[in-house]
Amino acid sequence: MKYDLLRNIIKDTERIIFGEEIDKKYLTDGLNLDYGEADVLVFVENGEEISNIIKFANENLIPITPRGAGTCLTGATIPNKKGIVLDLSKMNNILELDEENFNITVEPGVLLQDVQVYVEERGLFYPPDPGEKASTIGGNISTNAGGMRAVKYGVTRDYVRELEIVTGNGETITVGSKTIKNSSGLDLKDLVVGSEGTLGIITKATLKLIPKPKNTVNILISFEKLEDAIKSVSKIIKLNANPTAIEFMERNIVENSEKYLNLKLPSNIGNAYLILTFDGEEKEIILNYTNAKEAAINSGALDFKVLNENEAIDTWKIRGALASSVMEFNEQLPIDIVVPINKTSEFVEFTNKSGDKHDLQVIYFGHAGDGNTHVSIIRNGMEKVNWKKKSYDLAYELYIKSHELNGLPSGEHGIGLSKKEFFKNVTGEKELRYMKGLKAVFDKNNILNEGKVYC
Amino acid sequence: MKYDLLRNIIKDTERIIFGEEIDKKYLTDGLNLDYGEADVLVFVENGEEISNIIKFANENLIPITPRGAGTCLTGATIPNKKGIVLDLSKMNNILELDEENFNITVEPGVLLQDVQVYVEERGLFYPPDPGEKASTIGGNISTNAGGMRAVKYGVTRDYVRELEIVTGNGETITVGSKTIKNSSGLDLKDLVVGSEGTLGIITKATLKLIPKPKNTVNILISFEKLEDAIKSVSKIIKLNANPTAIEFMERNIVENSEKYLNLKLPSNIGNAYLILTFDGEEKEIILNYTNAKEAAINSGALDFKVLNENEAIDTWKIRGALASSVMEFNEQLPIDIVVPINKTSEFVEFTNKSGDKHDLQVIYFGHAGDGNTHVSIIRNGMEKVNWKKKSYDLAYELYIKSHELNGLPSGEHGIGLSKKEFFKNVTGEKELRYMKGLKAVFDKNNILNEGKVYC
Ligand SMILES: Cc1cc2nc3c(=O)[nH]c(=O)nc-3n(C[C@H](O)[C@H](O)[C@H](O)COP(=O)(O)OP(=O)(O)OC[C@H]3O[C@@H](n4cnc5c(N)ncnc54)[C@H](O)[C@@H]3O)c2cc1C
Ligand SMILES: Cc1cc2nc3c(=O)[nH]c(=O)nc-3n(C[C@H](O)[C@H](O)[C@H](O)COP(=O)(O)OP(=O)(O)OC[C@H]3O[C@@H](n4cnc5c(N)ncnc54)[C@H](O)[C@@H]3O)c2cc1C
Repeated sequence: MKYDLLRNIIKDTERIIFGEEIDKKYLTDGLNLDYGEADVLVFVENGEEISNIIKFANENLIPITPRGAGTCLTGATIPNKKGIVLDLSKMNNILELDEENFNITVEPGVLLQDVQVYVEERGLFYPPDPGEKASTIGGNISTNAGGMRAVKYGVTRDYVRELEIVTGNGETITVGSKTIKNSSGLDLKDLVVGSEGTLGIITKATLKLIPKPKNTVNILISFEKLEDAIKSVSKIIKLNANPTAIEFMERNIVENSEKYLNLKLPSNIGNAYLILTFDGEEKEIILNYTNAKEAAINSGALDFKVLNENEAIDTWKIRGALASSVMEFNEQLPIDIVVPINKTSEFVEFTNKSGDKHDLQVIYFGHAGDGNTHVSIIRNGMEKVNWKKKSYDLAYELYIKSHELNGLPSGEHGIGLSKKEFFKNVTGEKELRYMKGLKAVFDKNNILNEGKVYC
Repeated sequence: MKYDLLRNIIKDTERIIFGEEIDKKYLTDGLNLDYGEADVLVFVENGEEISNIIKFANENLIPITPRGAGTCLTGATIPNKKGIVLDLSKMNNILELDEENFNITVEPGVLLQDVQVYVEERGLFYPPDPGEKASTIGGNISTNAGGMRAVKYGVTRDYVRELEIVTGNGETITVGSKTIKNSSGLDLKDLVVGSEGTLGIITKATLKLIPKPKNTVNILISFEKLEDAIKSVSKIIKLNANPTAIEFMERNIVENSEKYLNLKLPSNIGNAYLILTFDGEEKEIILNYTNAKEAAINSGALDFKVLNENEAIDTWKIRGALASSVMEFNEQLPIDIVVPINKTSEFVEFTNKSGDKHDLQVIYFGHAGDGNTHVSIIRNGMEKVNWKKKSYDLAYELYIKSHELNGLPSGEHGIGLSKKEFFKNVTGEKELRYMKGLKAVFDKNNILNEGKVYC
């Protein structure tokens, strides 16, 4: 059988699983709505195995679908062409902490939450903070994950210093560097960040750390209407109040999450909320949130509550579980469009009207500070085929609108499989051709995640 | 004649100059030490002209050397294969300021100093600040220029949102986006940043701005020895005092600059200096520099002087003119090696010893906060051929040493022509091959800056 030779590469039989034996959870993404098929699932343990598997795949023209924790929301981990699912979750060692140069080197399968705890215990801080903490660093890098703290600290890309990768051609190369600055040749590193497993497999990553902020203050602001919350965000941004996070969410979705977690938000006033975080020196924080308070009140805030420790924990738990709670009680099509910040309210207004037109419920939550308004189109018991068609049509309108507003199909989740058509629709033919050309350099036989993102 | 058809593209005869008529200053870089030869120099005015010239060059296999202000220190603008010098300095319009989304769109030939003044007059701030303010934005982007404020704010790459480029194939594409976040397909934008004119010609750039910091405080610290200054830098960094700039310089080079400018540094104590800048809220600045003072005193600082406005202006003028003053009175081989910050003193010690061994004077100045210690090997009247050989040998040792320390050949100047051999020596054969492969996608006939950087 074609795959028999794989047993020479992965000798440990528990780490190589064939056909029907494969647990379905390895054939899907974080939404568990669509499933692919694979011939074999391998749990790799080191770069050498990966290189050998890729060489084998090149010789036999077998497609490979790389996966970390499989929490992506775009189908990027769904094997769409059969072949091999390459699971990196067992490569989960922290390799080196370099406190003097503020960096940490890890294997790709280490979970974000494990890195966060490890460095914070040592007075350091890894700022990227996507909602799903049980995602892997390799997955975070491959999607250029964003998250709660992007407003102040930027996204995963900004914290990747050096990567070891095995390219689609099976060669191991090092890209980026451990230095702070770098003007030495072409920037291969940033090409790999966000490439969704289409160019190479990340086998090692050195991440930038910063000193842990001394103080953190969390604030919950309540509004009568979502529009007031959004208006207040743009005012807070203009103030230069330097918040770490600005998240927004609506009452109806909060209730979902409250039910899911059996917790209560520290405010039940109003229909829309902003959570603000500030970190740094105490005096600066107070100055900044006092300014933010004025801006919020002027935009019609009903309440501005500085949270105590327990309240902050509960509030962030509720925020963190929004996506999961929607998935628990319902099905959603998550949309991760990003627009220039001053177009946020126009985009939300348009989405509301379009949702009404298509008779679909749309809920909003997410990262209000950077134009990356997450929109979820909710099934609400609608017949599945009908819902899929209707939500596709609505999504299509939203992608076109965001393109008109100089926006992009994805701010942080990536394109994967499910957004590929939308992405191709709003991206220039020439730009797509250059992307494909670059892939051919890294992966001449189109082995890695072929048929996704831009290919 | 082969170039006659160019006249159809550039009709304005003043903008197209042939052979012997070309002023020599367009055949060199910012050092004015080495000169190339060109068949024709064109001053382009728009993207269409550029695209037509590149298509013409492809048809006739004519090399093109792009240039902005020609201030680079690496020979990147020296025409090494004859052909066309493509000068972008006349494309110098500011196209759009978008205050709501904190960005500005400019043509590539706009000078850095003009952008800085333009935005600061409007309460905004463009943080990248390389020493040479009469460099162009296109040149800054193509070298990923660093500069004084990189410690706090990062480098040019961090402020490039969107670029329009004409690739080496003559096609106009848009890379990056005006949004804050972007996980939509391969990151072509960061591949172009720092590519030193080898992939395409930047014809338009949208740059990220931030609000102008409210207050700025400058400090001059004097030390008996350079080593003490370097020791104190690593302490200040560990303190998390968040300085905007940490520059260091030695007495002997300061005297050069004082003479050149007919100015005096506000301190004549000691033999080595640090200039620190802090910006932001007044209270935070005071807290931070009080901490920094303690660290500096503990490392043997002789003096810690908070500068008044005039003193600060003079100090930065002297710092700014260091490189030019060396070039005025002497010849130098500038080295822009970057090492992990905790290796800075080891690298400086090694350089001192090697300089002694080779009987060459070495001076230090530059960006102490990020491991990017500029080293200048000085001619000092030595016979030219002999100096070139000896300084090459010394430089070679320094590149090898920095490689051992996990450093890189260039932190901010780029590789160009003069550092190409060193770069190729310390870069993996595979990594170089991938770089060349990517170039072939953008520039299939090797028209643009062929024979430089990695090619
Ligand atoms: C409840 C919930 C909340 C979320 N919140 C956020 C959020 O706030 N912000 C955000 O950005 N995302 C969010 N996500 C999406 C998801 O968590 C991120 O995309 C995350 O980065 C995926 O990591 P993963 O390890 O699960 O990767 P996977 O889903 O396994 O893979 C993601 C992509 O990376 C590739 N890949 C994985 N590992 C490697 C590797 N080592 N080398 C090469 N390619 C690799 C895969 O092929 C795939 O293309 C959320 C998801 C859920 C379910
Ligand atoms: C006194 C002095 C001090 C300096 N200090 C610093 C410093 O602190 N930090 C620092 O980083 N650098 C410094 N430099 C180096 C230099 O100023 C920078 O490299 C600057 O970015 C070059 O800009 P330029 O417009 O002069 O580009 P050029 O020298 O004309 O070109 C530089 C490179 O960019 C390419 N290029 C230029 N424009 C384009 C375009 N539109 N499209 C594609 N390619 C293009 C050229 O082909 C070349 O490869 C200094 C130089 C001097 C002389």
